[in-house]
Amino acid sequence: MSTARLTILGAGSALPTRYNFPSSQLLELREKQYLIDCGEGTQISMRQMGLKTKRLNRIFISHLHGDHCFGLVGLISSFALLNRTADLYIHGPKGITELYASQMEFFCNQIPYTVHFVEHDTTQFQKIHEDRSIEIYTIPLKHRVPACGFLFKEKAKDRHIKREMIDYHKVPFSQINLIKQGADFINEEGKLIENKLLTTEPAKTISYAYCSDTIYTETIIPWITGVDLLYHEATFADSEAARAKTTMHSTAKQAASIAQQANVKQLVIGHLSSRYSSNQNIVLQEAKSVFENTILAEDKMVIEF
Amino acid sequence: MSTARLTILGAGSALPTRYNFPSSQLLELREKQYLIDCGEGTQISMRQMGLKTKRLNRIFISHLHGDHCFGLVGLISSFALLNRTADLYIHGPKGITELYASQMEFFCNQIPYTVHFVEHDTTQFQKIHEDRSIEIYTIPLKHRVPACGFLFKEKAKDRHIKREMIDYHKVPFSQINLIKQGADFINEEGKLIENKLLTTEPAKTISYAYCSDTIYTETIIPWITGVDLLYHEATFADSEAARAKTTMHSTAKQAASIAQQANVKQLVIGHLSSRYSSNQNIVLQEAKSVFENTILAEDKMVIEF
Repeated sequence: MSTARLTILGAGSALPTRYNFPSSQLLELREKQYLIDCGEGTQISMRQMGLKTKRLNRIFISHLHGDHCFGLVGLISSFALLNRTADLYIHGPKGITELYASQMEFFCNQIPYTVHFVEHDTTQFQKIHEDRSIEIYTIPLKHRVPACGFLFKEKAKDRHIKREMIDYHKVPFSQINLIKQGADFINEEGKLIENKLLTTEPAKTISYAYCSDTIYTETIIPWITGVDLLYHEATFADSEAARAKTTMHSTAKQAASIAQQANVKQLVIGHLSSRYSSNQNIVLQEAKSVFENTILAEDKMVIEF
Repeated sequence: MSTARLTILGAGSALPTRYNFPSSQLLELREKQYLIDCGEGTQISMRQMGLKTKRLNRIFISHLHGDHCFGLVGLISSFALLNRTADLYIHGPKGITELYASQMEFFCNQIPYTVHFVEHDTTQFQKIHEDRSIEIYTIPLKHRVPACGFLFKEKAKDRHIKREMIDYHKVPFSQINLIKQGADFINEEGKLIENKLLTTEPAKTISYAYCSDTIYTETIIPWITGVDLLYHEATFADSEAARAKTTMHSTAKQAASIAQQANVKQLVIGHLSSRYSSNQNIVLQEAKSVFENTILAEDKMVIEF
């Protein structure tokens, strides 16, 4: 089984604190990197950690609040200074292209690579990107502005060949890829050899869901059911449940309830209000009382899953 | 004598490093705060230091390169979350108002205070602000885009009253302010009492000059002569003098030479290229070989002068 690595570049919310940069995280999966949100200081956090981002070609912006996107133009500028040449794709809500047009024109008109803004509809669960090994979907969220999360889902992998059975049944090399994908085999005598005799189960695929910012909404559950890791915002403690509703954020217990209902393997909560900066543990304990396998995102934390 | 305090929020240049945020510093003088440049992460650095900015009403932007202004909109947004109500003035080169119009409209259209962009001509040495105690001037610099530094100059202070002489000569209370400002006094018998008999010299005034970014230029010397503290950029070591010229930056020796020719009391160098992040001391030593009283700006350093 391959592993994925999630690096928390910023676990904070609107107001940065002594401990937390605004939202940003780097997902590494199957040799590729995906940046999710890009709050102010994202590039600083990366540099402080000594992260290399040569395999980063796609950035996903959940919504156009500053704490999720104010680091974009700085990052784009710095990539130019680092002599990037590969195209960069920035996936964001409708309007992001126009919003960044004047800044791109003024600050980034001479960069040595191309930036493509790709807009998506935040109200639909839709595949917005795929390659050989991964599919990425938008997850509609409910917030004060159009917002969506993202589901990263490894594609089904090839079944494992039983080498000795392949030899025994004289499967020609040209058939191997089909067999790996689950096809049965018909041998020289016309006899059907079932695939399960030739292969074993493929390696497990990995899935990660990012849901921030959002009010508590059960509509997301079907899309994130069973994921290996769920990041869900938990801006408030239970005592501020009313405020969470007004500002269209979630409490830690609500985040944990979503995790439980969606039967995810692990929950990481973040985006805690700056009011908890000296007692984040209270918020974590509230989440754990509902869903035990919960951890609290911290800046520069690396989660392997 | 009052003191001034300069807090380095970011001492870096275009590329942030493990140690340096991009350019930003907070000057505190006579109960007021002035922010000079506002690179990405300025508000984060402030929060990490636990700085209060209640007395900050004016921001001065030297030029419109990202490492000197990408922190502006985040800072403005966060001030709103912190319930700021006082007007905020942002002094910047011509074009700054238009450049920030769409971001202000999109991200800051509901903030509870007013932001005034005030444009200045970077090619003139001109007073751009004054109040009861301070005057602030632009210092024309030479860079790839319109750029200027800033001179902060405390106004002449009142002379100190010799209380016993005031009593002896029966100076009425109504005359005291004039006497403090240097006026002679004519007593009841019509006799002139010279001011120097009634007062002693006023406290020394403080001056600070910020010069970044710029190629080596002696034209600035008359404007900064004798200042208590000069911040001058020193992007490169002497070995990169040619590159400094091409990119219109200064070497550390050039910064020190300006300090020496301008007979300033102390020099602080900063804006070192990220290439020196692990050996900044070499650059400092080069400056000190020309002007001994030089220090190297470091993030979160506080300089009292």
